Amino acid sequence: MTEAEARERATAMLVEAGIVLTSKERENIEIADFGLGRLDEIGLQIVVYVNTDRVCAKELVLFPHQRCPEHRHPPVDGRPGKEETFRVRRGAVRLHVDGTDDIELGPGEQYTIPPNTLHSFEAGDDGAIVSEFSTTSRDALDIFTDPRIVR
Amino acid sequence: MTEAEARERATAMLVEAGIVLTSKERENIEIADFGLGRLDEIGLQIVVYVNTDRVCAKELVLFPHQRCPEHRHPPVDGRPGKEETFRVRRGAVRLHVDGTDDIELGPGEQYTIPPNTLHSFEAGDDGAIVSEFSTTSRDALDIFTDPRIVR
Repeated sequence: MTEAEARERATAMLVEAGIVLTSKERENIEIADFGLGRLDEIGLQIVVYVNTDRVCAKELVLFPHQRCPEHRHPPVDGRPGKEETFRVRRGAVRLHVDGTDDIELGPGEQYTIPPNTLHSFEAGDDGAIVSEFSTTSRDALDIFTDPRIVR
Repeated sequence: MTEAEARERATAMLVEAGIVLTSKERENIEIADFGLGRLDEIGLQIVVYVNTDRVCAKELVLFPHQRCPEHRHPPVDGRPGKEETFRVRRGAVRLHVDGTDDIELGPGEQYTIPPNTLHSFEAGDDGAIVSEFSTTSRDALDIFTDPRIVR
């Protein structure tokens, strides 16, 4: 799957969910393969609505069984790391959070991940659309368990 | 319009927009009339998804021509006041922000309001659904221009 194909497929899922994007947002959908080149299995499609010094909001689109690999958000400049709430809008996600049992989230369900806590997640059979509400995103500072990953 | 009627009407608008809520969220939709008893004109229907010490996310439902009255979010405990991004999902909103020309937002359009800046907004002919992404909400600390308002 090329980046352009992934962007088109993510856009179709967002349209079907009734989520309206501007044309600029559609063009700028981020395709993250984490440097592994296996987007079908490990990757995310991301719409960033806003990312200020204090607040960030995104839509995450996952294709069926696509996975976001394990990582954590460390403290930065003496402040706690990124805090994330994932709210599933469509489809289903299985969330793995260090120190807890696996969490299954369906539409309208959500979970808040504390800063600096290892987590990963993958979509179910129909993929998923997940709203992320968080503090500032600084993707380059994320720490992944798999050392081959480049964000 | 009673609170129960407002809740039912807001729920119908959210369903039509494809926004999935849990039954508990539907029951807990906040009906804010700002103590004025004129909900048709001045009010908001609010779904709070999350409100931690750092991040808050809500859906705001506005009925046709309903208005959120002018207010600002002052600094708290030496930290800047609440920063809000409004993203229109359905309908249209006219946003009044101190020091700028009026801003018209339609579906997929958004605007970020700096802390401590006077603002108000009202929905167009079809009402509106607006996602709010912000720092912590402390509604009781908001400062309204109309001294009769109780939040």
